[in-house]
Amino acid sequence: DAPLFDRVAFIGIGLIGSSLARAVAHHNLARSTVCTAKDPEHLEVAHGLKLTTDTAPTIAEAVRDADLVVVCVPVGAYAEVAEQLKGNLKPGVILSDVGSTKTSTVRDLAPILPEGAHLVPGHPIAGTEHSGPAAGFAELFIDRWCILTPPPGTDPAAVEKVAALWRAIGSWIEVMEPEHHDKVLGITSHLPHLIAYTIVGTATDLEEDLKQEVIKFSASGFRDFTRIAASDPVMWRDVFLNNREAVLEIMQRFTEDLTALQRAIRRGEAETLEALFTRTRAIRRAIIDAKQA
Amino acid sequence: DAPLFDRVAFIGIGLIGSSLARAVAHHNLARSTVCTAKDPEHLEVAHGLKLTTDTAPTIAEAVRDADLVVVCVPVGAYAEVAEQLKGNLKPGVILSDVGSTKTSTVRDLAPILPEGAHLVPGHPIAGTEHSGPAAGFAELFIDRWCILTPPPGTDPAAVEKVAALWRAIGSWIEVMEPEHHDKVLGITSHLPHLIAYTIVGTATDLEEDLKQEVIKFSASGFRDFTRIAASDPVMWRDVFLNNREAVLEIMQRFTEDLTALQRAIRRGEAETLEALFTRTRAIRRAIIDAKQA
Ligand SMILES: NC(=O)c1ccc[n+]([C@@H]2O[C@H](COP(=O)([O-])OP(=O)(O)OC[C@H]3O[C@@H](n4cnc5c(N)ncnc54)[C@H](OP(=O)(O)O)[C@@H]3O)[C@@H](O)[C@H]2O)c1
Ligand SMILES: NC(=O)c1ccc[n+]([C@@H]2O[C@H](COP(=O)([O-])OP(=O)(O)OC[C@H]3O[C@@H](n4cnc5c(N)ncnc54)[C@H](OP(=O)(O)O)[C@@H]3O)[C@@H](O)[C@H]2O)c1
Repeated sequence: DAPLFDRVAFIGIGLIGSSLARAVAHHNLARSTVCTAKDPEHLEVAHGLKLTTDTAPTIAEAVRDADLVVVCVPVGAYAEVAEQLKGNLKPGVILSDVGSTKTSTVRDLAPILPEGAHLVPGHPIAGTEHSGPAAGFAELFIDRWCILTPPPGTDPAAVEKVAALWRAIGSWIEVMEPEHHDKVLGITSHLPHLIAYTIVGTATDLEEDLKQEVIKFSASGFRDFTRIAASDPVMWRDVFLNNREAVLEIMQRFTEDLTALQRAIRRGEAETLEALFTRTRAIRRAIIDAKQA
Repeated sequence: DAPLFDRVAFIGIGLIGSSLARAVAHHNLARSTVCTAKDPEHLEVAHGLKLTTDTAPTIAEAVRDADLVVVCVPVGAYAEVAEQLKGNLKPGVILSDVGSTKTSTVRDLAPILPEGAHLVPGHPIAGTEHSGPAAGFAELFIDRWCILTPPPGTDPAAVEKVAALWRAIGSWIEVMEPEHHDKVLGITSHLPHLIAYTIVGTATDLEEDLKQEVIKFSASGFRDFTRIAASDPVMWRDVFLNNREAVLEIMQRFTEDLTALQRAIRRGEAETLEALFTRTRAIRRAIIDAKQA
């Protein structure tokens, strides 16, 4: 069987880029691969790890012969990357990405797309709190969803080719509109991270003695939040800045619910508390049934 | 070596009680053990699992010959349990517990203590989101802290005996005042649970379609909250009602911090966001160093 792609270029080779490169190599999905990074030292690391067949010092060189280009940088760097992609993409290329916000992806990448090229944005719902090329692994995407958000009118054959790549490395595919993606992920991902960052931030501001005790006794619930709040600061800064509206909207709902719970505690409303705490168990059950636990 | 205790009685034999009973048996820390539960069927289960040497249908019978009594029920049931302990405790008995709030423990249990008996409240910082006698396991307390909160004037020998039991099953001991315990655990445990219950509650209230998508794409952060929010509703109702002041105070701080973050997102303050997200990483590092990750 001929590989799915001739040459795949990874722009950025951190946790997600390097995991994808490893998976593509493992499943022999491209005749050759190439990557580039911002920091030459990190590119050296990628080279040393043999993550791709080739490495390139610039984005222009990396994408020159690629029939699939996957942008794997923080979403705040997309506009800058787009500037460098402009005029350097091969005719018929498929431009894709793995970024966590999708309206911004279309906003930043669609304008530089040449005639006959295809934009098929993607977002794998998989990750860890670690970052960098050494943190990646080929199995990251197995039994995880990958959401594709092609703009209306995108060639279905291009969408199918990107979908085939993700399926080959173990993922399940869902296609949706960028705005809807940003709304759903605002709830499932951006709000949880925001909350985790806040609660760990609240603890960080405590007096030193109390902070030491919080660390000591973190096994009682707190430590689960610290794992989430150890995620990459730049990536998450960019996510919040590029999905502002959806994040602020769901945050508003959350704050209202928190205020209601606060009132129930203050008033000692035992039944309200028990009813809420019972309802929330059902979602856990559903997640276990959906094999996402 | 003679066992540390002659007869240990467990009042309540759910996740924590049954884990403790298993650990005490495993390390041969008592000549005999006995347990009781509210529901006769659950006592049957405990009997079938051979968690203790004996079972007793009432609290009065369970504690009659015990030199250590460990209350292992939700903290909201302590007043009721205290009523049944009254007049039935053996002279010289040590009365202890595993409840998650400690000011309320002293408030509920101290008044019924007979002359010459000792109150040594305890709280193991260990647990899971599961409950019931079948969910317990003997290793639960290994490399975990157990906080003891004896009221001022408690016989140090009694405190040391309880500490020796926890150390024997793998725990580390910390002694503190009940009020201080409730403040620290308000931050490390009660607030995180409250937040998790709220965010999962917010998701539960979404329209059905959106809710299904939240379940599907939960691997992006949300699912970690659902595990916490699957904890026992009665236990947590009781915790919040019995540590109201400390919980409301830390909740207030959290809400202020959340509002500040909301403002930073609305205004697009990239540096504020990145700075906070960078600071929170340090706590994760400290928790890993403290072997509590
Ligand atoms: N982490 C997750 O859990 C997760 C999950 C799903 C999707 N995503 C998305 O995946 C993308 C990458 O995230 P990651 O976790 O892989 O991050 P990462 O490990 O920090 O890697 C980021 C990569 O982007 C490069 N880069 C950064 N700024 C750049 C710029 N201005 N120009 C060119 N290259 C640049 C970095 O190069 P240098 O090292 O040389 O700076 C690095 O190779 C993000 O858009 C993120 O939203 C992340
Ligand atoms: N779960 C944790 O992560 C954790 C961690 C540290 C401390 N704790 C504390 O440990 C204690 C027990 O929690 P758990 O997780 O073991 O709960 P659990 O698994 O639900 O078990 C509770 C036990 O208490 C009994 N009980 C309930 N109400 C009673 C009443 N009114 N009179 C007599 N017995 C009664 C139950 O008997 P029936 O089954 O017959 O109703 C059951 O045996 C709580 O105070 C909790 O705050 C829990």
